[in-house]
Amino acid sequence: MRRVTIGVFDSGVGGLTVLRELVARIPDADYLYFGDTARLPYGSKSRETIAKYAVSATKFLEERGAELLVIACNTASALALDAITDAANIGVVGVVEPGAESAAAATRRNKVLVIGTEATIKSHAYQHALEKRGVQVCEKACPLFVPLIEEGWLEHPVTQQVAHVYLDDVFQDFESGPDVLVLGCTHYPLIKPLLRSVAPWRVEIVDSAEATARCVAEGLRIAPPKTSEGAERRKPARMKFFATDSVEKFRSLGERFMGHALEDVQHVDMG
Amino acid sequence: MRRVTIGVFDSGVGGLTVLRELVARIPDADYLYFGDTARLPYGSKSRETIAKYAVSATKFLEERGAELLVIACNTASALALDAITDAANIGVVGVVEPGAESAAAATRRNKVLVIGTEATIKSHAYQHALEKRGVQVCEKACPLFVPLIEEGWLEHPVTQQVAHVYLDDVFQDFESGPDVLVLGCTHYPLIKPLLRSVAPWRVEIVDSAEATARCVAEGLRIAPPKTSEGAERRKPARMKFFATDSVEKFRSLGERFMGHALEDVQHVDMG
Repeated sequence: MRRVTIGVFDSGVGGLTVLRELVARIPDADYLYFGDTARLPYGSKSRETIAKYAVSATKFLEERGAELLVIACNTASALALDAITDAANIGVVGVVEPGAESAAAATRRNKVLVIGTEATIKSHAYQHALEKRGVQVCEKACPLFVPLIEEGWLEHPVTQQVAHVYLDDVFQDFESGPDVLVLGCTHYPLIKPLLRSVAPWRVEIVDSAEATARCVAEGLRIAPPKTSEGAERRKPARMKFFATDSVEKFRSLGERFMGHALEDVQHVDMG
Repeated sequence: MRRVTIGVFDSGVGGLTVLRELVARIPDADYLYFGDTARLPYGSKSRETIAKYAVSATKFLEERGAELLVIACNTASALALDAITDAANIGVVGVVEPGAESAAAATRRNKVLVIGTEATIKSHAYQHALEKRGVQVCEKACPLFVPLIEEGWLEHPVTQQVAHVYLDDVFQDFESGPDVLVLGCTHYPLIKPLLRSVAPWRVEIVDSAEATARCVAEGLRIAPPKTSEGAERRKPARMKFFATDSVEKFRSLGERFMGHALEDVQHVDMG
């Protein structure tokens, strides 16, 4: 496989959970991560605004050499994937389709619960993607999870209580309810253990970040270029980060999502 | 008093609590409200980014005829008041100084607790304003209050629990602790009853929104123009709203803060 440069785009640091999964599966690549922290959160904004922001980020990453673009933001994937694909000259992968595919494969009852931000849920992007695959869908917006995660309350009783408020109704009818829970927001993997304790034990948790990384890895393996560049391949993943707000804030919050320090972070002014 | 046009600026709908207080005190005026909803929240952004956004909003309101500008955003007042004042050709009033003045007048123990967003608290703007007045200050960032309020959980047990997590430590030493609590964020008046129940009963709650409106009203009365325009004066307050994100979202969330429907809302694209 030729060494590729993969652009990863998110409204903030949440997409780092996707980057982490990508690096684990495709270590022999270069990564450009763009976090639009000056304009986050996208989750409560309109389709037009999100599309405009996402397209400007796409162009930025392309200019910097991205050969493949991963939209590691559920809201942007749900609301602006068409706009991004139209504007881009390279392949674009969102998180919704891989997440839906993974959930459809996992459900035995053909019933799935999708949780995400207000904008992702209102778009019904997961619902459409799952219904296409013959799966019944419940959707639930959980707008407090992102601020709770950014506050660092990953195992806090308050976060647990909020999860119960959001999810208990859906899981009440244990026998006929959904048997798969889709984490339709890249922040949510950080509270996966907590959600594991709140959801009934028979419910499988599908993480869109993981599903997307798997999908990208498979896609790259399916069509490997014929030239072998063995020497270059063994170099570890190189990562460059671009943030539209403070570099320090991106670094300190980002470490929690990435699991290690972020070396090369640059500020970008998108005007 | 001549009928004036007052510009009110906030990152979103929170500043409507200031507008509400202004209209109650100065009904014979025209109001232009600018909510930068496409770029909110300011509370977690850097000084440079906030100043840039606030200055562009200032210029917009001036061009539309504002003769006096109220920065109804604690974060922008705390971090960008100098930048705004430099850029503006009209008088500028922030919420920090009036809030601090009101708190200094209320405290008998000379100890005040200020709560606000992360950026407001980190700026220490209230601390500086209060120390100038010889008052001791504790500061506490409460980043979860805004999302809880926007979720509509104004009296929810979760909000109560979060308030206890944030405030109990400070109020633990009841005898020597602060006797005034300053609401250093324009969202917080909506949970004033809840905060009333969490804080010890002897603690007085000072609302910066109210203090600012009082300050503006007094300022206008101190220097009334000599021409009398009695007829025009009796017209009720006229309000125009500008939002950088979806008009529908601004309307639906804004009603809760304003206490009534918002008629004239226009979308503005700040590029």
